[in-house]
Amino acid sequence: MSAFPKIKLHWLEKSRALRVIWLLEELGVKYEVIPYKRNENFRAPESLKKIHPLGKSPIVEFQQDENAKPIMLAESGHIFQWLLNKFDDGKLYDVKNREQIDYYLHYAEGTLQPPLLFEFIFHKAREAYAPWPISSLKNMIINKMSSGYSAGEVKTNLEFLEEELKKNNGYFVDGKLTGADIILSFPLTNEFGFEMKDYPNVSEWLSNIQKSKGYEAAKEIAKSYGSDY
Amino acid sequence: MSAFPKIKLHWLEKSRALRVIWLLEELGVKYEVIPYKRNENFRAPESLKKIHPLGKSPIVEFQQDENAKPIMLAESGHIFQWLLNKFDDGKLYDVKNREQIDYYLHYAEGTLQPPLLFEFIFHKAREAYAPWPISSLKNMIINKMSSGYSAGEVKTNLEFLEEELKKNNGYFVDGKLTGADIILSFPLTNEFGFEMKDYPNVSEWLSNIQKSKGYEAAKEIAKSYGSDY
Repeated sequence: MSAFPKIKLHWLEKSRALRVIWLLEELGVKYEVIPYKRNENFRAPESLKKIHPLGKSPIVEFQQDENAKPIMLAESGHIFQWLLNKFDDGKLYDVKNREQIDYYLHYAEGTLQPPLLFEFIFHKAREAYAPWPISSLKNMIINKMSSGYSAGEVKTNLEFLEEELKKNNGYFVDGKLTGADIILSFPLTNEFGFEMKDYPNVSEWLSNIQKSKGYEAAKEIAKSYGSDY
Repeated sequence: MSAFPKIKLHWLEKSRALRVIWLLEELGVKYEVIPYKRNENFRAPESLKKIHPLGKSPIVEFQQDENAKPIMLAESGHIFQWLLNKFDDGKLYDVKNREQIDYYLHYAEGTLQPPLLFEFIFHKAREAYAPWPISSLKNMIINKMSSGYSAGEVKTNLEFLEEELKKNNGYFVDGKLTGADIILSFPLTNEFGFEMKDYPNVSEWLSNIQKSKGYEAAKEIAKSYGSDY
């Protein structure tokens, strides 16, 4: 078996990178995981900045053959599109559904993730200790920012996704697992700013897709590096 | 001249949609603008929800011919990729630079925009009136959230962009105007969380690309609907 093309995934524990392992597993390609641990502040380590100036993960390094210059792919949606274009045989990215899948590959980070990130930051700020009455004032200020922007956005988006899952028979595109489901797994796994019980279709979809072999394999790989995802 | 393909751009004043007018002007395709005004809270009007459930703009409606069902394209990066794939003749999206341009089409909303949006929301919260000493406490809490996440992210990203502009002769890809520059114009136009004077390459790039005919035309179209962008 040829050593090329060579794929290296720079994988940070507990990050968006798990879904790239999942994707690579579904695509059935050979790849190597380069693991990184978070530091004591739950930040990415400085060593990732040597791979890409933004110091984020996932990063996929791809080399076509021994004479080719390796390319560095960043941005989850871009990595997904690139790998799907190159390696999918119609299972996760068939031509007839491509426009709809591409939409979600942008939507996951461009629209869904930002208000969820706001709610996560607000959640951490609410939890940070402050003496009374400052604590109460702090929560008032945070709640005002949340209700002014992110809480409503999270609700609008979750309602949209509930409806889409209903229309598409339990998946986001065409009633079957596609790249859209895999990329959406990350933002919808952590319940910040919403309660899963309020969104039964999302809840059922998540537990369904997490039964797939690719997801199970990805979790095992994370576990082999001492992380739970 | 055939009435098809038909392109309608649902354009909200003072939004991400201006750059889609700019792109359509550069591509030289025929299109119709459907204008929307912001309401008194600077929100998108409810009427946009009839076009797409998330109620955001831009939305591009595309109909290939009279027998085809119109498709609705949402997400700025996705709209850009779709239009560039369909209509670009190699000017803004040539094959040799496609991977790099695609990267920025995801990066603009997926990585650059979120911390800038945080800084915008924090800016508005700082400006909101509160009596002393609450005002001072409020600003302390906001500054803590900003320094814990978005301020550092904005700095890391602007430094990255400064360096990229230097490496690529004043543009983001290959020393010339591409889809990457047009999509990045929106997040970098508003100075929230950074000062343009600290980033001379970004500042020069912005004033250069805003001299292009496509941008001038887009501004004129916004103006014809009574908006400044």
